[in-house]
Amino acid sequence: MSTAIILLAAGQGTRMNSDLPKVLHRLAGAPLLHHAMRSGAALGAERMVVVTGHGSEAVRKAAQAQDEDAVCVVQEEQLGTAHAVAQARDALAGFEGDAIVLYGDTPFVRPETLEAMQEARASGAAVVVLGFVAGDPAGYGRLILDAGGALQAIVEHKDATEAQQAIRLCNSGVVCADAATLFDLVAAVGNANAKGEYYLTDIVGLARARDLTCAVVTCDEAETMGVNSRQDLARAEAVFQARARAEALENGVTLTAPETVFFAFDTVVGRDVTIAPFVTFGPDVTVESGAEIRAFCHLEGCHISEGAQIGPYARLRPGAEIGEDARIGNFVEVKAAQVGRGAKVNHLSYVGDASVGEGANIGAGTITCNYDGVFKHRTVIGDGAFIGSNTALVAPVTVHAGGYVGSGSVVTMDVPSGDLAISRARQVNKAGLGARMMARLKALKAKGRD
Amino acid sequence: MSTAIILLAAGQGTRMNSDLPKVLHRLAGAPLLHHAMRSGAALGAERMVVVTGHGSEAVRKAAQAQDEDAVCVVQEEQLGTAHAVAQARDALAGFEGDAIVLYGDTPFVRPETLEAMQEARASGAAVVVLGFVAGDPAGYGRLILDAGGALQAIVEHKDATEAQQAIRLCNSGVVCADAATLFDLVAAVGNANAKGEYYLTDIVGLARARDLTCAVVTCDEAETMGVNSRQDLARAEAVFQARARAEALENGVTLTAPETVFFAFDTVVGRDVTIAPFVTFGPDVTVESGAEIRAFCHLEGCHISEGAQIGPYARLRPGAEIGEDARIGNFVEVKAAQVGRGAKVNHLSYVGDASVGEGANIGAGTITCNYDGVFKHRTVIGDGAFIGSNTALVAPVTVHAGGYVGSGSVVTMDVPSGDLAISRARQVNKAGLGARMMARLKALKAKGRD
Amino acid sequence: MSTAIILLAAGQGTRMNSDLPKVLHRLAGAPLLHHAMRSGAALGAERMVVVTGHGSEAVRKAAQAQDEDAVCVVQEEQLGTAHAVAQARDALAGFEGDAIVLYGDTPFVRPETLEAMQEARASGAAVVVLGFVAGDPAGYGRLILDAGGALQAIVEHKDATEAQQAIRLCNSGVVCADAATLFDLVAAVGNANAKGEYYLTDIVGLARARDLTCAVVTCDEAETMGVNSRQDLARAEAVFQARARAEALENGVTLTAPETVFFAFDTVVGRDVTIAPFVTFGPDVTVESGAEIRAFCHLEGCHISEGAQIGPYARLRPGAEIGEDARIGNFVEVKAAQVGRGAKVNHLSYVGDASVGEGANIGAGTITCNYDGVFKHRTVIGDGAFIGSNTALVAPVTVHAGGYVGSGSVVTMDVPSGDLAISRARQVNKAGLGARMMARLKALKAKGRD
Repeated sequence: MSTAIILLAAGQGTRMNSDLPKVLHRLAGAPLLHHAMRSGAALGAERMVVVTGHGSEAVRKAAQAQDEDAVCVVQEEQLGTAHAVAQARDALAGFEGDAIVLYGDTPFVRPETLEAMQEARASGAAVVVLGFVAGDPAGYGRLILDAGGALQAIVEHKDATEAQQAIRLCNSGVVCADAATLFDLVAAVGNANAKGEYYLTDIVGLARARDLTCAVVTCDEAETMGVNSRQDLARAEAVFQARARAEALENGVTLTAPETVFFAFDTVVGRDVTIAPFVTFGPDVTVESGAEIRAFCHLEGCHISEGAQIGPYARLRPGAEIGEDARIGNFVEVKAAQVGRGAKVNHLSYVGDASVGEGANIGAGTITCNYDGVFKHRTVIGDGAFIGSNTALVAPVTVHAGGYVGSGSVVTMDVPSGDLAISRARQVNKAGLGARMMARLKALKAKGRD
Repeated sequence: MSTAIILLAAGQGTRMNSDLPKVLHRLAGAPLLHHAMRSGAALGAERMVVVTGHGSEAVRKAAQAQDEDAVCVVQEEQLGTAHAVAQARDALAGFEGDAIVLYGDTPFVRPETLEAMQEARASGAAVVVLGFVAGDPAGYGRLILDAGGALQAIVEHKDATEAQQAIRLCNSGVVCADAATLFDLVAAVGNANAKGEYYLTDIVGLARARDLTCAVVTCDEAETMGVNSRQDLARAEAVFQARARAEALENGVTLTAPETVFFAFDTVVGRDVTIAPFVTFGPDVTVESGAEIRAFCHLEGCHISEGAQIGPYARLRPGAEIGEDARIGNFVEVKAAQVGRGAKVNHLSYVGDASVGEGANIGAGTITCNYDGVFKHRTVIGDGAFIGSNTALVAPVTVHAGGYVGSGSVVTMDVPSGDLAISRARQVNKAGLGARMMARLKALKAKGRD
Repeated sequence: MSTAIILLAAGQGTRMNSDLPKVLHRLAGAPLLHHAMRSGAALGAERMVVVTGHGSEAVRKAAQAQDEDAVCVVQEEQLGTAHAVAQARDALAGFEGDAIVLYGDTPFVRPETLEAMQEARASGAAVVVLGFVAGDPAGYGRLILDAGGALQAIVEHKDATEAQQAIRLCNSGVVCADAATLFDLVAAVGNANAKGEYYLTDIVGLARARDLTCAVVTCDEAETMGVNSRQDLARAEAVFQARARAEALENGVTLTAPETVFFAFDTVVGRDVTIAPFVTFGPDVTVESGAEIRAFCHLEGCHISEGAQIGPYARLRPGAEIGEDARIGNFVEVKAAQVGRGAKVNHLSYVGDASVGEGANIGAGTITCNYDGVFKHRTVIGDGAFIGSNTALVAPVTVHAGGYVGSGSVVTMDVPSGDLAISRARQVNKAGLGARMMARLKALKAKGRD
């Protein structure tokens, strides 16, 4: 059975108080939108239709950055969820299979939950609704089941009788149905209600009127958590992080202070990795087994090999590849650079657009001067090279294997293997001048000049 | 109606276990004292009398730093709150209007609450007491009301009958009365009690004896939170931060991890600003809309314009003014410097006492050498200038618009517009010397010398 | 009465999911093992026998790093706690006195608690068991007392009657007995149980059968917290930190945000020290009174004297000794270096293997070049010396008192007292070349070359 995802992502998100469309706000380093898209992809959905509206162009770009085959359709006016689903009809013309309606602002629905919905469909239900048992059901639509457990109706909170209000099984809004059936039902939804909107929940009543079976699959309330405000977004981030931390601990990662480590949606951390307090992970970071991440590190788009020691205060930017047992120390930035096995960049350095050979030693205060104002150039440092402290390497430049650069040099020409390169002005000590100069400055100050 | 604040700030704060007077301990970046002073100022109080005692000179300085017109009077001996209020009498000689008694260690009383007290005064009550409904009233004085809601008496916990102990409406100590009346009542307070102190609460009984009406205004218990220990101070900080974070979220600021962001009392953050984890704000910071504050930033006394990107690991110190869309990157310190629109200072730099023109690019490891041991000097960098990496700019010095400084230079003379400045010793590669030197050093080490 | 500790540290810690033996995982900067060892040492125990097993060689090294007189015996097969204790018999041959059995994965048992057990022994009990009143006793062995309060039996949860299951006084596993008696009892323990293991708890039944008195000493449940998973380890760290923070506040330390400060097991912080958010302490740090630790500091193995100001973003490594009123600023690393009274190292510097004299000023971007690839060398900076910004000091080198080094210098020779040292290439301004170069680069870019 083929599956299509219809992802509703048109809402303005007024309560976010933002110029940015709601679904583009970030959770765990990715736009909200991507989280639901990834659940659909994990399920193996063949088609992805994103219904955009507010900020449709930006949302389209973001959606296609996650899935280049995603089709985006624009809901020009936001007339309700059924209306939104209807916009996907043309994009799915000819598609045969199930359609699942997800929401761009509801990031935590698990692929396993969607699978359970597919299975309920396969067992014969025409429409499958995802429900959850609410801690506090006030405000949610209630799912009314018959004696056999089939879904009879969805009753909005305000329309519910006292007995119905006592029901805690609530509607998440996530729906699965045969695509053709779904679009037929949606087309029949009316807008004779207070807001004049077309509600997707009405399809249950319409389906029942046609004698179609409706079923409920339930999930944990946390999966259905939606984001409507920045407060919600911060709460969702906290939920994500709590899970990611628990999972890391379970997998054999030491987190000294789990509450101070922030993972991204795709962070991969190996066994026996130690992560100290105050570490943030941006997207696309892999840390291999036995590596140590010290405090105050900021990591994104990088690969850290076995046994490497990172930080404290290391910033690894996209393209940083740190070899086995290499060390990146404090106040060091590495970008688009390979640092070889056992190499050391211990202090106050910028290594950008570079490669550093195995066992090379990069002294404190070393800067790869990779930018000339227009182009970026590469610095190549060979195996076992020694770069003295406070050195500027003016790219493009190569220090060959075993090359040795004296401290305080500005290296503009390649250094052959085994050579000593030095560029240093002669030191002159002017006798007594330091003392005389200070005396003169202090005298000036005493006179009140500045 | 004119209003005067009498701020009691004489206490020693024994439980703080500190040499610093209690009211000078900092909350949200300001001395405790200032918080109550600001509430008074927000109310529009015309006069501010601070009653000092312990560390009176330091407290006076701090008070006048916040309000140069504040009058400080010294309570030589700490003989109780009524005695403290009495010290303000001379300072308010001739003043006509209401006096409100506040406390230097009670930072959260809101101006709106004080306004409500003023209104109660205007409605005819001679003495208005601020009360709160305590979660746990044990230890507090209880407010005894008559059937009409007027305040009859304040009964100390230890003197309360069982019925009175069940009352949860408690005394905050904050009082508002006509100044002349207040001083008359205070003068009548006796000290015939266990501690031999003069208690301000006694004025209610005295007022009632004179048939003066007393009224109660209530506020949230949190407003009356006092600070008596460092544990209390940490709790007060947490309360302040929780409010500030909630307010920022409400105002359209994204806080990925609100619990890791620390605001100051006067931080201003615009809409659609994003603040990553681990950021601290000192006093006097404004962040305009759409700016991004990345992780591990330390900001104080600075202005960040629209669309600027700051950090990670940026330290902005007082006088840093960051232009629109400018970028301040990692391990960068900016002090007393203007960074123009679109300029970039991306890595490992110190920009102090300087101005950086629009679109200028400051390479990694650039240092403005602003201090000669006695005086500070300015560095001026023009629009569109390019400063190569690892450059020292020895102030006073100017790189004019479009000037270009080669990497690794020490710039001591002005660079005319469009010129290329360079100061670099010739690089020499000594053939094979690097390898020979390392071999010799390793041989020495093998022999055990160090 | 002499006392010996028998510390059980042989377990594999399967649930840790780690290659590292469980007792070597770190808590508050020290291996778990050390915490129990320190409790024993604080009690004044004369002998320390550590029973190792999994990773015995690494555990032995760690144990002897903490106490060089610790004797380690290997339990080749892990056949139960009684079997583990029996391994210590030879190591304590000839020893007369009490033996206390502790656990390497149970870090919080206080010396005071162990003292209470010794006292119970001195009062005549042959075997003293440490108990605790469990919040939730499920799973723990229950301590069954007689009417006089003596211990009659330990009943495992699964063997407990309903009445016994209602008992909340539980067995911690910690035991104190005369060493000879303990070994006799342990030798009599059998393994006729489901797992075929020898359980130490069985000695109570054996002792009672011999009419020996058994007593219970109780402690707080938190003291008996054991570590079996990384989740547990993180929880134990949180418990440790909460106590350490509360203690610091009590002792007159200001912690703006206590939950963001991480102490080590041996951190010493004086009165009126202020610690800002986001600070981590490794082992062996002392901070004297009145010092200020600003945000984002990473401190280990260092001594900070009265009134010193550290950070933000200061990394002090082992051997950093910061003098009174000295200042270490942002992005500064200090290692194995003495910084004199009132000296300043304010920005972006590395000071390693060095001494900095009183009142010396080290400019931004100063690097001590202490490593030649094989050896480390020392830099000596005299009192009142001034090191201009962006200077490289190539060790071994001395700048004598009052020496003045110009900005951007590479100092390779000693600087006599009061001299001005400078090593700087002449600056050349090439007229118009900057503009022409940029124009050429931009033209190239326009042509699509990169």
